[in-house]
Amino acid sequence: MEYKFSDRVSNLKPSAIREIFKYAADPEVVSLSAGNPSPDAFPVKAIEEISAKVLAEDPIKVLQYSVSEGYTPLRQHLMEYMQKECNTGSENDDIIITTGAQQIMDLCTKSLVNEGETVIVEAPSFIGSLNTFRSYNAKLVGVTVESDGMNTDELEEKLKANPDTKFIYTIPNFQNPSGVTMSLKKRQKVYELAKKYGVLIIEDNPYGDLRYSGENVPNIKSFDTDGIVIYAGSMSKVISPGIRVAYCICPKPIFQKLVVCKQGNDVHTNIWAQYICDEFITKYDFNNHLGMLRNIYAKKAEFCMNLLDKYCAPAITYNKIDGGLFIWCDLDKSIDMPSFCKEAVLNKVCVVPGNAFLTDENEECHSFRINFTTPTDEQLEKGIKILGELANKKI
Amino acid sequence: MEYKFSDRVSNLKPSAIREIFKYAADPEVVSLSAGNPSPDAFPVKAIEEISAKVLAEDPIKVLQYSVSEGYTPLRQHLMEYMQKECNTGSENDDIIITTGAQQIMDLCTKSLVNEGETVIVEAPSFIGSLNTFRSYNAKLVGVTVESDGMNTDELEEKLKANPDTKFIYTIPNFQNPSGVTMSLKKRQKVYELAKKYGVLIIEDNPYGDLRYSGENVPNIKSFDTDGIVIYAGSMSKVISPGIRVAYCICPKPIFQKLVVCKQGNDVHTNIWAQYICDEFITKYDFNNHLGMLRNIYAKKAEFCMNLLDKYCAPAITYNKIDGGLFIWCDLDKSIDMPSFCKEAVLNKVCVVPGNAFLTDENEECHSFRINFTTPTDEQLEKGIKILGELANKKI
Repeated sequence: MEYKFSDRVSNLKPSAIREIFKYAADPEVVSLSAGNPSPDAFPVKAIEEISAKVLAEDPIKVLQYSVSEGYTPLRQHLMEYMQKECNTGSENDDIIITTGAQQIMDLCTKSLVNEGETVIVEAPSFIGSLNTFRSYNAKLVGVTVESDGMNTDELEEKLKANPDTKFIYTIPNFQNPSGVTMSLKKRQKVYELAKKYGVLIIEDNPYGDLRYSGENVPNIKSFDTDGIVIYAGSMSKVISPGIRVAYCICPKPIFQKLVVCKQGNDVHTNIWAQYICDEFITKYDFNNHLGMLRNIYAKKAEFCMNLLDKYCAPAITYNKIDGGLFIWCDLDKSIDMPSFCKEAVLNKVCVVPGNAFLTDENEECHSFRINFTTPTDEQLEKGIKILGELANKKI
Repeated sequence: MEYKFSDRVSNLKPSAIREIFKYAADPEVVSLSAGNPSPDAFPVKAIEEISAKVLAEDPIKVLQYSVSEGYTPLRQHLMEYMQKECNTGSENDDIIITTGAQQIMDLCTKSLVNEGETVIVEAPSFIGSLNTFRSYNAKLVGVTVESDGMNTDELEEKLKANPDTKFIYTIPNFQNPSGVTMSLKKRQKVYELAKKYGVLIIEDNPYGDLRYSGENVPNIKSFDTDGIVIYAGSMSKVISPGIRVAYCICPKPIFQKLVVCKQGNDVHTNIWAQYICDEFITKYDFNNHLGMLRNIYAKKAEFCMNLLDKYCAPAITYNKIDGGLFIWCDLDKSIDMPSFCKEAVLNKVCVVPGNAFLTDENEECHSFRINFTTPTDEQLEKGIKILGELANKKI
């Protein structure tokens, strides 16, 4: 049998990152390629308590079918929390619980983008989202990320050149992969341009709670008086990614369409996992837990940046970060990045080649991404030392 | 802001069943409209034990990110189990774990069907799958379900008339909503026709383990020597639907495409839930558990059919069932079915109008679906008595 796939997925390739995980499974390899929370960042004791209690007292509540929009108390509590803490979400919005934030990208693309229509993304951007947009045959147009966020002049040019743009996809805080945080001025400008050109914004904010230094910058959604911003939040980095719980705050008409699409996608998100998240954010000290996470990650980030300073200059430079899980490293222009990443794997260190995050993977790129939250300190030191030695031999 | 949705979802409506759930939430209403397992059918104690043990011993295993194809031991054990018990799956196949079987329909439609291409379905068929196919703008073509499964002459006519057909979707055991089981002869014929016309078959089998009487009929997948059958199995009716775990056994090239699409859909299915399913089917007596389920449901099915005999003839007739969760009821042709269902809700009994399961909801239909596994015996008696009285007053 010759299998004939749909046009939209014929050219779809497995995510480069998830393929790299296969090398990373070798216990001898130091993996700096993941995006996993640190194993000591999980609120295991609370999860055990909540889970044991509900299974003893009301198991059917967390084992039976549930509703597509999500567990009502969790939806209410997240909405209240986001309004109170970040002025995010208004009476014109509603909230849907999804199976990870990846599903928000899937449901939004399905609902909003016809095949061939344009989605504007940061260049570089999160490969998982890029692949979701690609899986609906969207045309991806990249806008360069600068040290304070996307180049807004270029954004306007691209909006003019692509009148079929449906939305702008941005990760404004500690962007994956660049580590960059968008300035308030640029957030306002992006919002203005979206309004001017009649397009929506998807604001993806999985790392917002993981700021180690500097001042919080308001969410774009916090100035959404026109109903044009879809906000994606996630429990993956602050409770657990394995249980797949995220949430989307968006204008009610979009919410309604996302709910219908979710019915046809997975009916509803694991209800037990939703219940755990709800109990954790309401009955435990969630803000204290976030403080603990920030302490763990701030230490690891500083340790990692010190290692980069010690072992990697001058052949590898990097952007200092204020939060998140990733550091974006630039190789000296004389070094061929793809060959360097392959050589690193042969030397038992895994990083993600930067071109994986571009709209066109064949574009020239001299950067790679490292993660510092998953490896132990010993692994970090070993891995970064090898990267530095390999690179500095070449210049 | 005027929101412009994609063509594929513009006409998509919320599932009639899930909308009916909103009436069913009224505690005074007897709901015969759900498809939920009976509350006493969940292996709660085992789930508690498995969960407590893994959280105490190796919590990160079930809380961290995992791989898109699913938890490896669960994939292996399900594949072995299906090969051994039902000769389903060969060395040309692979297995992917999904977030409920609904996601199998989503991933398959996405991978295989271009907008406007044909999907052949049973008429009536499961509304959730129909809506998934619709959400990719597939053209739905229905084939009449008879007492031994779909009319295969009509199937061949429809295959001839629609050369752009990508797959035939069938629920061969205790079909939802008709309760019908397809005969072996018709299964072989459907397979032959699919082969002859070069189309695939999706065999959706969520109720296969719930046979109360009669002989098992082999799965269509069991005679798939040509690699044309995609088999969908589910843990929802035999362990728990709220935790959203299902599996798809299909030819390797299709498997690979489904994995890529799943990466972009929800990255992976809740890993804790996958672990629980694996431990339950390997460390507990799964076949004994299935026997217990069959006992519970056989009793409820018989009780329900006795009530239908007692209260509903002659205005309501029904097809006797050998398994599954649903009974399909036919109203006397002189009664307007949609008005009857509305009147039933006003009299505090919820059923699902039969036209919800058709490819064209405006087609004339004199049937409705009831479920007997979710309500208590008292609720069943109360609800069916009301239905019988309402209908028999009208003839």
